[in-house]
Amino acid sequence: MNRMFADRISDVPKSFIREILKVAVDEEVISFAGGLPNRALFPVKELKQAASQVFDNMGPEALQYSNSEGLLKLRKFISNRYMEKSGLSIPVENIMITSGSQQGLDLLGKTFLNEGDDVIIEEPGYLGAIQAFSVYKSRFNPVKIHEDGMDIEALKHVFPGRNPKLIYTVPNFQNPSGISYTEENRRAVAEVLENKELYLIEDDPYGDLRYTGEPKSSFKQLLPDKTILLGSFSKTVVPGFRLGWIVAPDDIMEKLLIAKQASDLHTNQFAQCVLSAYLEAGDFDVHIAQIKKVYNHQREAMIASMDRHFPKDVHVTKPEGGMFLWVSLPNQISSMKLFDLAIKNKVAFVPGHPFYIGLTETNTLRLNFSNVDADTIEIGMERLGRALKELLANS
Amino acid sequence: MNRMFADRISDVPKSFIREILKVAVDEEVISFAGGLPNRALFPVKELKQAASQVFDNMGPEALQYSNSEGLLKLRKFISNRYMEKSGLSIPVENIMITSGSQQGLDLLGKTFLNEGDDVIIEEPGYLGAIQAFSVYKSRFNPVKIHEDGMDIEALKHVFPGRNPKLIYTVPNFQNPSGISYTEENRRAVAEVLENKELYLIEDDPYGDLRYTGEPKSSFKQLLPDKTILLGSFSKTVVPGFRLGWIVAPDDIMEKLLIAKQASDLHTNQFAQCVLSAYLEAGDFDVHIAQIKKVYNHQREAMIASMDRHFPKDVHVTKPEGGMFLWVSLPNQISSMKLFDLAIKNKVAFVPGHPFYIGLTETNTLRLNFSNVDADTIEIGMERLGRALKELLANS
Repeated sequence: MNRMFADRISDVPKSFIREILKVAVDEEVISFAGGLPNRALFPVKELKQAASQVFDNMGPEALQYSNSEGLLKLRKFISNRYMEKSGLSIPVENIMITSGSQQGLDLLGKTFLNEGDDVIIEEPGYLGAIQAFSVYKSRFNPVKIHEDGMDIEALKHVFPGRNPKLIYTVPNFQNPSGISYTEENRRAVAEVLENKELYLIEDDPYGDLRYTGEPKSSFKQLLPDKTILLGSFSKTVVPGFRLGWIVAPDDIMEKLLIAKQASDLHTNQFAQCVLSAYLEAGDFDVHIAQIKKVYNHQREAMIASMDRHFPKDVHVTKPEGGMFLWVSLPNQISSMKLFDLAIKNKVAFVPGHPFYIGLTETNTLRLNFSNVDADTIEIGMERLGRALKELLANS
Repeated sequence: MNRMFADRISDVPKSFIREILKVAVDEEVISFAGGLPNRALFPVKELKQAASQVFDNMGPEALQYSNSEGLLKLRKFISNRYMEKSGLSIPVENIMITSGSQQGLDLLGKTFLNEGDDVIIEEPGYLGAIQAFSVYKSRFNPVKIHEDGMDIEALKHVFPGRNPKLIYTVPNFQNPSGISYTEENRRAVAEVLENKELYLIEDDPYGDLRYTGEPKSSFKQLLPDKTILLGSFSKTVVPGFRLGWIVAPDDIMEKLLIAKQASDLHTNQFAQCVLSAYLEAGDFDVHIAQIKKVYNHQREAMIASMDRHFPKDVHVTKPEGGMFLWVSLPNQISSMKLFDLAIKNKVAFVPGHPFYIGLTETNTLRLNFSNVDADTIEIGMERLGRALKELLANS
């Protein structure tokens, strides 16, 4: 019955990571493959208390149908935090709560993309965005990113041949590469885009998780009328609540609300109330500080292990925050071949090719350091180093 | 910047009900307009206990990223309940948890509908389905429903001129009309569709809320290979959790999972765990019995009030369950005109035209009886009767 399916759904890449995680379920496999925050840091006790408060103080109100924009208190918190952390003035009317920031991507695709519309995406780029926009049959224009950010010449080169509606960026501690755009790079990107008719999506799930270096300007400061912000509580509180948000100008917000209603009416009201009660209790920054301390320790442990166990001609990014390192193997080495050998050595990672548009093999790979403690990192990296040396010896 | 938006989003009707509810926020207005379950019946205490158990027994596991299919325990509960209540054998692999059944509609649209694809929809029909499928630019083929169910001749008449991929039905206590398909009507519908290449969506959010009459066959029994079921906990537990489900054959489930991943990765894990703990505690049927008792009382109160206060040539459906009555005014009377007068009389309802494809005026209207107690119903219906008499006198 193949004629029955929509064209769009046959074009969407199946989640390669999802498939890979199935290989990595073996309990003995040390996995650097996922993108999970460390559950040991979830504020279980505090959320339990917040939930109890919500049941007692709000009762049925927290459990009824609600509005598509999201809980006002939560949107106010987000608005205040933008002001406090970045000096950005974002009215609550321009904030919508979403069922995770993945839904933000889906709603933006729904709102903007006709079949064949051009979208600029970082290369390597975030898989969830590739998946979400593929559903709307957009045409991807990949622009390489380097350790200082987006390749400005490649970005310029997109125009005027193409007329992209959206450019998707993760300027802080990007997934998959860990790269952050420098201040200079952000300004150069803004300069290229200044007079173009498009919107820039700044997806910032990891922005709060900075371990070194100084915070940089948001594109919302550099291109205020063109920038759409995506945020998430998945990395700073818990992912299981599926709570994220979009910041967008008025006319876009109006369309996004229609898309939201058609998609799921509104975001889980109870989870919004519990999160809001948790945030109001006031330990959010203390909690983030603790996450940063642990993740930074694990990041350093991973880099140090790599120095000990990897051949010298392997290159790795040194991210200033986030959850990922990005490894480039010597040119002739396929990270898929390394993956097969690594699984035999009971260690897993994500090969780089799914993060590129239309590639089936690369010499790159992604390592997650947030979800594995330092001791296990050392064992896993030793295994991975062994697999890599074996592969190099036979190539 | 209008060229920026996707065509699909300009075609989607804004939620008329949403707009109407804004008019009805005046505290003095008695509203029969919404479709809200009665919050006085929410099992707040039991859910609080379930949440507390989840925090204590599952802890971080209930708060981490999870799978796109949904919580296995919850899917097992749903599977067992189908067997117990309807003798339907539904493997857990064919059940996916969704962010409310509105998301089920969106995922089905995403999976099946190319621009211009034909969809059969009941007339009057459920607004959420009209919205969800409009996003995918389907062509609607409305088929009238009468008090015994779908108009069989009109259904036959769709073929062979059109080649619809989907037919959307709410055979039990339909929204907006309250109508249920008789057993004979279901069999006649199944006979018409038997040899057609399409899928039938049986959306059944109200199925558990039957006050009189006997349960009827599900289309899953009559057209087992062609039927996709949608279910929801919004009317039987709480809507704020946004928890519903889809039952679909293997090959469709595979596509729905890709659509789900691209849409929001997975449904709120914590809410799934809490709901599952609540359902396992075993009072679900007792709870449903209590809802039925209260709603049936309100349904009868509304029909009795209507007998007292409405002119005799007004027709109303007498639904066997659900949350809505459907009123037909004498032919020359516009329900929009009645609406304006009703608001002046401090009472609200939903005029019928948004439930039709392409109509701007009808003599029909929807009344909700689940969310207003019997005493308030009497006052509200008296006001509405007064408005109606005034309108009739001047027409």
